Amino acid sequence: MLTYKQALDKVFDQISLLPKLEEQVNLLDSVGRVLAEDVISDVNLPPFDNSSMDGYVIKYNPDIRAWNVIGELSAGNYQEFEVDYNKTVSIMTGAKLPKGADTVIPVENCIISGNKITVSENYALKRGKNARLLGEDIKNNSVAISRGTLIKSSNISLAAACGKSFLSVFAKLKIGVFATGDELVSIDTVPVNDQIRSSNLSTLTAMVNEMNMEPVVFGFIKDKLELIESKISQALSTDIDILITSGGVSVGKFDFMQEALINMGADILFWKVNIKPGKPFLFSTFKIGSKIIPIFSLPGNPLSCFVNFQLFVKQALLMHYGIKSTNHFTAKLKSSAQKGDNKLHFTMAESSFDIEHGYFEVDSAGSQSSGSMSTMSKSDCMYLFPEELTMLSKGDWVECIRI
Amino acid sequence: MLTYKQALDKVFDQISLLPKLEEQVNLLDSVGRVLAEDVISDVNLPPFDNSSMDGYVIKYNPDIRAWNVIGELSAGNYQEFEVDYNKTVSIMTGAKLPKGADTVIPVENCIISGNKITVSENYALKRGKNARLLGEDIKNNSVAISRGTLIKSSNISLAAACGKSFLSVFAKLKIGVFATGDELVSIDTVPVNDQIRSSNLSTLTAMVNEMNMEPVVFGFIKDKLELIESKISQALSTDIDILITSGGVSVGKFDFMQEALINMGADILFWKVNIKPGKPFLFSTFKIGSKIIPIFSLPGNPLSCFVNFQLFVKQALLMHYGIKSTNHFTAKLKSSAQKGDNKLHFTMAESSFDIEHGYFEVDSAGSQSSGSMSTMSKSDCMYLFPEELTMLSKGDWVECIRI
Repeated sequence: MLTYKQALDKVFDQISLLPKLEEQVNLLDSVGRVLAEDVISDVNLPPFDNSSMDGYVIKYNPDIRAWNVIGELSAGNYQEFEVDYNKTVSIMTGAKLPKGADTVIPVENCIISGNKITVSENYALKRGKNARLLGEDIKNNSVAISRGTLIKSSNISLAAACGKSFLSVFAKLKIGVFATGDELVSIDTVPVNDQIRSSNLSTLTAMVNEMNMEPVVFGFIKDKLELIESKISQALSTDIDILITSGGVSVGKFDFMQEALINMGADILFWKVNIKPGKPFLFSTFKIGSKIIPIFSLPGNPLSCFVNFQLFVKQALLMHYGIKSTNHFTAKLKSSAQKGDNKLHFTMAESSFDIEHGYFEVDSAGSQSSGSMSTMSKSDCMYLFPEELTMLSKGDWVECIRI
Repeated sequence: MLTYKQALDKVFDQISLLPKLEEQVNLLDSVGRVLAEDVISDVNLPPFDNSSMDGYVIKYNPDIRAWNVIGELSAGNYQEFEVDYNKTVSIMTGAKLPKGADTVIPVENCIISGNKITVSENYALKRGKNARLLGEDIKNNSVAISRGTLIKSSNISLAAACGKSFLSVFAKLKIGVFATGDELVSIDTVPVNDQIRSSNLSTLTAMVNEMNMEPVVFGFIKDKLELIESKISQALSTDIDILITSGGVSVGKFDFMQEALINMGADILFWKVNIKPGKPFLFSTFKIGSKIIPIFSLPGNPLSCFVNFQLFVKQALLMHYGIKSTNHFTAKLKSSAQKGDNKLHFTMAESSFDIEHGYFEVDSAGSQSSGSMSTMSKSDCMYLFPEELTMLSKGDWVECIRI
């Protein structure tokens, strides 16, 4: 059976073949998207030497500590002045420095007397202090923000200053999702007898949204071979880039997903990974002309379905876009744990940061039964319980993946 | 001058008075929102005893290791069977347990011979194994997800299983934003002479969006007292809950924000905080009948404006909704740092997690000049350089706030 690493490599081999199309979005719609262009500044930043303080602007000379005020400058109201050793101009934050000037004395360090100012005795003059120089932040025509950056609000000022009302970002992949199960009813139905509400479809859709991709929801169907084939066919006839299915991948008599995929002409790349939960994960691809659609067939158990998405779909997409994953960390285990198999376990867990010691602590969030939606709901991460171990002790360091 | 903590307390005093209105949103639109109701389950979860494996379901008896197969059960296809010590039913994952049954043997541990099965010699039978019991995850009528939870995709399965197609969440606050500055031109204009592009307006809007609040953008205006008064008046005549302004709060001759606010009848709660950047932050409120609108007047320098939003607007809103802030952490400093004042500095920084040692490292992201948008763009956090210190050494532990 494949290890997690081997399986992820095989998934990534296919995901990495997906085209990275680009689209223009409004600057404000770019947050959360991946930049598909280098943002090049069309100006120097700052565009001119300017003052970072309200004060008086001078031509630095260590021996001069008094000046005549010859004028006033504020941001956006430039006038021509020439500052010499004994002359100064009153200047506001952001205003362009006048000719000859290189240094600003903050107003609170000046003694003002009519048209003359003197600098306070204890103030140390320093050439260039409180002056921001043309291009010191970003040079004209240089790369301000690199292609591949995951855009956050902290990138927006710089993009705006570079004149970008629109940014080129990678287009959202269209990700089809459907679920199978004779027992499934819709959320707004009260289940009777041995029915349960379909929950994976909503969770998969939410996770696709969280990745800033575009979900295409094909609903849920019964566990009948011909229905599954027909649903796969319907999904593959659209312009989706990836298909995710839930259910029908275990070894039960009504697990038709693999048979349906084979009948439809999909290439089965692997079935089963040595992990828990989510062992029955089935990965295949479907070729339509030169287009290859990766198909993730996940188990129907809510926890297995969720964990498989996190481990395979999400990780492979982060790798595809070259996003440095910040969701891996190590933590100190708060309770011991045992297992009786040689699978790699992903334990749904709650982490907290110990501010005093500077490390994360982590603890199981409850029952790891693959149906335990309350555990999933309480979790903020999964910790890894390695294949070869059967015991973890309180205080052990474990690898974690934030969800 | 107020400390950061004192200023934040004063801000929170006002923010905590804002009404927490509720609205119903579609389950999938709830991700990123704060739950305004306790989600109560209208069913037991699971709704019936069921199998967590594909296998054979038995009535546990430590001495019996062979059974006659009397039928077959799959999820959603319940039929009446009664299992006794020598009888078993073939059962699929998720199927309801038949009468009398309590334990499931996985199919891979069974030796099947016609209508009889025997359990493998090395398999340890255990009562209740692979059976999920009615209500073991969530009891009918109990709280499944608590009011105040920040909804993530990991909460969706449970909400769906509880029958919630819609969730009640706290309504988005409407947050007005405008900027002032004679030097400002729009992003799509090429600035000439001493003009610069307006970038704070976009960044503030992006940060409001990131908080899942509703921005109301009032544009930018010149630094003229009457224009600022008129813009404040325009903003306050709408149904905004909070107003954020940028620019005009320093000690320069054209810093009219405070004067305008006083003229309009706002109550100035404080001006200036002992921090860097963002010292000139001005906080006021405006009463309209029983409604009190908090007004955050931030400096026009991009870094100051950004940091003030993170420190005051964002933190106060997280506190208002009772969201346990997960954006505080401690990290080991990668380079020494010095400062010459007694302000609390928030240094824009880049952090990384050292997987091997289990801690964060952090380093300044570049020039901390309040105009340095490239530093802001590279940062993922701010580290705190305390008031009383003038020196931090490489390897020191520092507090950090993720941005």
